[in-house]
Amino acid sequence: MNESAAPLLAEIKFDAQGLVTAVAQQDDTGEVLMVAWMNREAIERTVATGQAHYWSRSRGRLWRKGETSGQVQRLVELRLDCDGDTLLLLVDQHGVACHTGRRNCFFRALRDGKLVTIADPTVTPGELYGEEGTR
Amino acid sequence: MNESAAPLLAEIKFDAQGLVTAVAQQDDTGEVLMVAWMNREAIERTVATGQAHYWSRSRGRLWRKGETSGQVQRLVELRLDCDGDTLLLLVDQHGVACHTGRRNCFFRALRDGKLVTIADPTVTPGELYGEEGTR
Repeated sequence: MNESAAPLLAEIKFDAQGLVTAVAQQDDTGEVLMVAWMNREAIERTVATGQAHYWSRSRGRLWRKGETSGQVQRLVELRLDCDGDTLLLLVDQHGVACHTGRRNCFFRALRDGKLVTIADPTVTPGELYGEEGTR
Repeated sequence: MNESAAPLLAEIKFDAQGLVTAVAQQDDTGEVLMVAWMNREAIERTVATGQAHYWSRSRGRLWRKGETSGQVQRLVELRLDCDGDTLLLLVDQHGVACHTGRRNCFFRALRDGKLVTIADPTVTPGELYGEEGTR
């Protein structure tokens, strides 16, 4: 994939911080993997390289998913919602999406009045990131 | 469904406006229907009634999905992500989720360098909302 993001960027309504919400969904299974933020550059790089890039609000910098862990997301398709303020990334996730080592980030569910953990890590943060344990 | 949302609310990191991002996904097919915002009250009402409620930033008020259109979302399960700042609502969507009359809101896709419409409305806004045509 190596195409221009310009027609998409023209329709996006970025927030006051220049960001837009991005939902990453596994293309074949429909699993919602994670939700993150993208700025203009993250979108351009995602489209240009075919690998998902996001904007990290906590670290204040662009971030290629998997740059440290190797758990990259290959872009299959990029979609925009009716209001122009949310992106849906259909991706093929290599390995796990969550920095906790779980396949996706939504591993806590409200069941019978309790918040329960419904998925276990399949790899350890140490295996993903070495000793540092950050994403 | 009639259970307490308190254990969930305790783990949510609301933003400065008291809001959290909410992704609504059709429970059986995995289709991502829409992304909206919830505040504390929206979550409480969603859990208490078993029907999705959101906070409308544009209208500045709580909103029960389908209150005008009849296109309600029955809650199947409410999940929280690792960072505590995004909710995933597994729902059973009655009719269409998008105010344009399409099944979901992500009907524009970047393909071959163009932003193309990949789904048509299945009902008209007039059928959903009468003459007013607002969601």
